[in-house]
Amino acid sequence: MARGRFITFEGGEGAGKSSQVRLLEERLTAAGRSVVRTREPGGSPGAEAIRALLVTGDPDRWSPLTETLLMYAARRDHIERVIEPALARGDWVICDRFADSTRAYQGAGGGAPAALIETLEHEILGPTRPDLTLILDLPVDVGLARAAARDTGAETRFEAKGEAFHRRLRDGFLAIAEAEPQRCAVIDAALPLEAVAEAVWAAVSGRLV
Amino acid sequence: MARGRFITFEGGEGAGKSSQVRLLEERLTAAGRSVVRTREPGGSPGAEAIRALLVTGDPDRWSPLTETLLMYAARRDHIERVIEPALARGDWVICDRFADSTRAYQGAGGGAPAALIETLEHEILGPTRPDLTLILDLPVDVGLARAAARDTGAETRFEAKGEAFHRRLRDGFLAIAEAEPQRCAVIDAALPLEAVAEAVWAAVSGRLV
Repeated sequence: MARGRFITFEGGEGAGKSSQVRLLEERLTAAGRSVVRTREPGGSPGAEAIRALLVTGDPDRWSPLTETLLMYAARRDHIERVIEPALARGDWVICDRFADSTRAYQGAGGGAPAALIETLEHEILGPTRPDLTLILDLPVDVGLARAAARDTGAETRFEAKGEAFHRRLRDGFLAIAEAEPQRCAVIDAALPLEAVAEAVWAAVSGRLV
Repeated sequence: MARGRFITFEGGEGAGKSSQVRLLEERLTAAGRSVVRTREPGGSPGAEAIRALLVTGDPDRWSPLTETLLMYAARRDHIERVIEPALARGDWVICDRFADSTRAYQGAGGGAPAALIETLEHEILGPTRPDLTLILDLPVDVGLARAAARDTGAETRFEAKGEAFHRRLRDGFLAIAEAEPQRCAVIDAALPLEAVAEAVWAAVSGRLV
């Protein structure tokens, strides 16, 4: 059995990742792929328990360094229990956020040292790296307005971090795309849902199918 | 204001650490020191929430690598919010478990890579290192019998890891003491409570007071 493919979606708040993840899942399933759709932080029972600590409460509940370690604890559990077993049995895994979110949120946004984040990628991800990363890019004010309009319950900790944080975040994602163009495709998320889905599909079919 | 001193207690299950932490706190307080007594995993509100994930549930709930990251997330929060502020204002901090427990439980006991644990010590502890570490040493069967006899509620996840694990754990603590004799004192925890307390006090007064 050939190893599956690992596709991640990244981007700031309100970029429409979860809708696009679902649309891509439908399209790949229709194309005959066995797909596992998952998300971070979370995606396994243990990682979801860690998620609850991360996405609720006061924006200053955790420092960027503590947050980085919690994210990597959740990520490691998710990799061991969901992502690697799925890829090993030949499934395609579509994940809403992965390691680039730590670079952008805790690193570029929060100021956690890039060297520590690189070390954790090396030590904790091991060979589990995305084959393709779709970065849904959107002006900060548009994304925050969209995020404010949706119902996210108590999961507002990162949204509440302020506009300067979200600007650094967007720049962080764009810097990742620029540094790794082979892996990353930047998608204009200000377009209508269907147009974004077409751009996503063009990237996936052009690079992986 | 001179920086306070940082004393940690280490050892396996049932070694009597929490009693000895309390007795040392009394003795230092009587000697005029301002003392902060705390514990790991936990010791700050955030770290206590992480503790709840670590010490309850099935022994295999987390892999040793995920456990290491969760322990360091809790430790970082504890350092930032409790330990460093206390040391900075001149208090003495007595902590029931600290970084050596990760070396012993997740490293020697669980098999998490020593190099990763060293990297985390370097990156996450920074200058927050114990001035003195008291390792309460006890034969494994005696410790586990004592631990089984006490009421620890649901916090039995590590106790349940089996005798081979607890043997590697004890060897791990003794290896730390051998490698860092300036910082560590091994105390025979099979002695009666009062005799252990005298040995602890001899180490503290001989090395720090």
